[in-house]
Amino acid sequence: MPIQPRLYNGTRDLLPADMLPRERVLAEFRRAFQLYGFAPVETPAMEYLEILTGKYGDDEQLIYRLDYRNDDPARRLALRYDLTVPLARLVALHPELPLPFKRYQLQPVWRADRPQPHQGRYREFMQCDLDTVGTTSLSAEGEIVALCADLLGRLELPGFVIRLNHRRLLRAGVEWAGVDPALESAVCGAVDKLDKVGREGVLRELGARGVGEEEAGRVLDWISLPVDAGDPSALAQRLEGRADGLLALDELRELHAQALALGVPERHLKLDLTLARGLSYYTGPIFETVFPALPHMGSLMGGGRYDGLIGMFLGREIPAVGATLGLDRILTALAQLRPGEAAATPTRVLVSRCFTETEGEAQRLAGRLRGLGIPTELALEPGKLKKQLAYAAKKGIPWVLVLGPDEWAAGQVGLRDMRAGSQTAMPLTELLADPGRILA
Amino acid sequence: MPIQPRLYNGTRDLLPADMLPRERVLAEFRRAFQLYGFAPVETPAMEYLEILTGKYGDDEQLIYRLDYRNDDPARRLALRYDLTVPLARLVALHPELPLPFKRYQLQPVWRADRPQPHQGRYREFMQCDLDTVGTTSLSAEGEIVALCADLLGRLELPGFVIRLNHRRLLRAGVEWAGVDPALESAVCGAVDKLDKVGREGVLRELGARGVGEEEAGRVLDWISLPVDAGDPSALAQRLEGRADGLLALDELRELHAQALALGVPERHLKLDLTLARGLSYYTGPIFETVFPALPHMGSLMGGGRYDGLIGMFLGREIPAVGATLGLDRILTALAQLRPGEAAATPTRVLVSRCFTETEGEAQRLAGRLRGLGIPTELALEPGKLKKQLAYAAKKGIPWVLVLGPDEWAAGQVGLRDMRAGSQTAMPLTELLADPGRILA
Repeated sequence: MPIQPRLYNGTRDLLPADMLPRERVLAEFRRAFQLYGFAPVETPAMEYLEILTGKYGDDEQLIYRLDYRNDDPARRLALRYDLTVPLARLVALHPELPLPFKRYQLQPVWRADRPQPHQGRYREFMQCDLDTVGTTSLSAEGEIVALCADLLGRLELPGFVIRLNHRRLLRAGVEWAGVDPALESAVCGAVDKLDKVGREGVLRELGARGVGEEEAGRVLDWISLPVDAGDPSALAQRLEGRADGLLALDELRELHAQALALGVPERHLKLDLTLARGLSYYTGPIFETVFPALPHMGSLMGGGRYDGLIGMFLGREIPAVGATLGLDRILTALAQLRPGEAAATPTRVLVSRCFTETEGEAQRLAGRLRGLGIPTELALEPGKLKKQLAYAAKKGIPWVLVLGPDEWAAGQVGLRDMRAGSQTAMPLTELLADPGRILA
Repeated sequence: MPIQPRLYNGTRDLLPADMLPRERVLAEFRRAFQLYGFAPVETPAMEYLEILTGKYGDDEQLIYRLDYRNDDPARRLALRYDLTVPLARLVALHPELPLPFKRYQLQPVWRADRPQPHQGRYREFMQCDLDTVGTTSLSAEGEIVALCADLLGRLELPGFVIRLNHRRLLRAGVEWAGVDPALESAVCGAVDKLDKVGREGVLRELGARGVGEEEAGRVLDWISLPVDAGDPSALAQRLEGRADGLLALDELRELHAQALALGVPERHLKLDLTLARGLSYYTGPIFETVFPALPHMGSLMGGGRYDGLIGMFLGREIPAVGATLGLDRILTALAQLRPGEAAATPTRVLVSRCFTETEGEAQRLAGRLRGLGIPTELALEPGKLKKQLAYAAKKGIPWVLVLGPDEWAAGQVGLRDMRAGSQTAMPLTELLADPGRILA
């Protein structure tokens, strides 16, 4: 009795129709990262467990551990949970890397979380990170914001907005609202939910996290203040004598100016005090993309400065700025914006094999089309045209070439448009002169 | 006291100088696979253990198991050991996939093997497989051989030879040599070592596996026979009345002819009775690349027909042909053929920031160069030119732009060639007219 084939809950097979757009988007990621001088690295899936523990708070229980030499605590292994701790480990092991070190990393991570496949939450997913390590310069933030704007533009996600805020402005807001500074992180967590739960929801969240009613109202008042990069006087007034807050506001305006200078159109940028970012480790400017065309999608990209994390294995602070791109969300957004059957094959044309007289010619024609850069399938089994057309239809191959012996002898080839269901004869020389256009 | 950063033995960090050629070669893989109509799939790293057990013989002990819900045998998890069993599982779970199903898969696999990093053997490595599932047509073999020849040619690995043999010819040879048919698999294993241990070594291996001295000599005699695809009469004579062997010979010649028709130059193909392939599951034609320029490299690509494996979860035979590409070996071969410092950055040019007067211009120039497709870094920290040149030198950035205020006012920019150590002034318009050529 064969074993029942099945998948572990929360994981998935990615079939051709999933993978083809995925590879296209990842190629765009790599192109954009390299255009800005970010270099790829990869780290092993397996890390020593002790490298990963003590870094993720309560989420530590979501780390997958390996059942291999786990009788010796120092040799216990686990699967990587994110790409940030491995980056810190890599930086510590490779002091020869010149700083600032600009790296990107596109690798899966594993989390024993409750899966929600319909919301795109899986136990294995591709994490797409880029980070600049080793500089306190705001240019690092500016560059990453510009890169992400550039990339989202190239992906044709129209109208995205990159919201900019600063963690130390949020801290100033917590002070201004009269909230206990020890609750700063809790306030960030509550404010971060604004898009999902609305203003009333944030008030409830704040209450649940121990913020008094009046102070919670003032927090909402703080985040509701619009900020104009050109004239931030309203916010400056609220900040009054808070030197740290005023410095943070200056940094935020400088980041905005840098992004403009690097070519980001102003309509894609917005200073926004409601932006909090969920993670507690940010220490400076933070940013996050919203996509008004799909308001329930969540952020397609987000990040910020986190100066306290990368040096963890060296026992000293190493400044860093990073961003993470939501590959699955970006793919979902693209599919929703441009619906229609996703192609399940890279093949542009099927060279059919229905006639023994033109068998050899069919093989050579397939080779020539591939030589011209056209993804081409040669029917693997000779047989009736009907069967070969059915295969092309089932796979979504848009064009089929038919090499009838008489047409072929006259220098012609039959070109069938599978979407239109029509077939025309065409001189072979014409096809080979510009196959990219004809088989578009 | 921070945790000591360290890597699990047999795993590795891939730094930019490793990753940049790796990404280039993987992009060539994808391009070639898609050109022949192979579509990408990915499967999860975690599979149920029972899916993987009973498939790998003694090597089963090398499977990494997870320490997660492993009190219930049916819920035990493990890391994928290869891409073939996951492909069989995927095919069983997705009966809607049109056959023949042509897929490629580029994903890491994990094996708790003894690592030999100096020989390129790691516990995590990228497996690069392509397979055609669901056809007995020899065109499937021909296409994969042609694809691999095409790819190796594009990678500029000169003089590679794809050796072709047939498992049923090996079986005929075992019969001809008078060896017990039960030892067929042992004979394949011994013959597979010919390149490593030589003829004497194969004789010893055969003896150790229970083949008598005289029969072992005849096995060597069999594999030593040269085979000419055009005139196979010498082999045909040896095969005498062995119908199955003669049929295998016909298939082998047909595969050779198909590869030629698909455009493979004859010098890259060789019928070779010494080719055995180590794995026991092959059932038909087999093929493997040798690279005479680097004889100790081992095979860069190998594969063959294996009709008994893919249907394992369905309890019926599903024909299949597959090949696996040795990514690490191909990268080693390329590095040995074209030695020299590998670039540690994708960046072509660093726009330096040494003058407050041209700060904004430096930012805008970086943006313009990126817009023209040139991987560009803008110095993240303004400062002395000397320091910025040192950064470029350390990273291997070949060009640096210097925006001196006087030159800039005159429409000029300083272009420093880091390899030559020289600097020239150049009109900005000239640079922007053809930056790809100037910054080559």
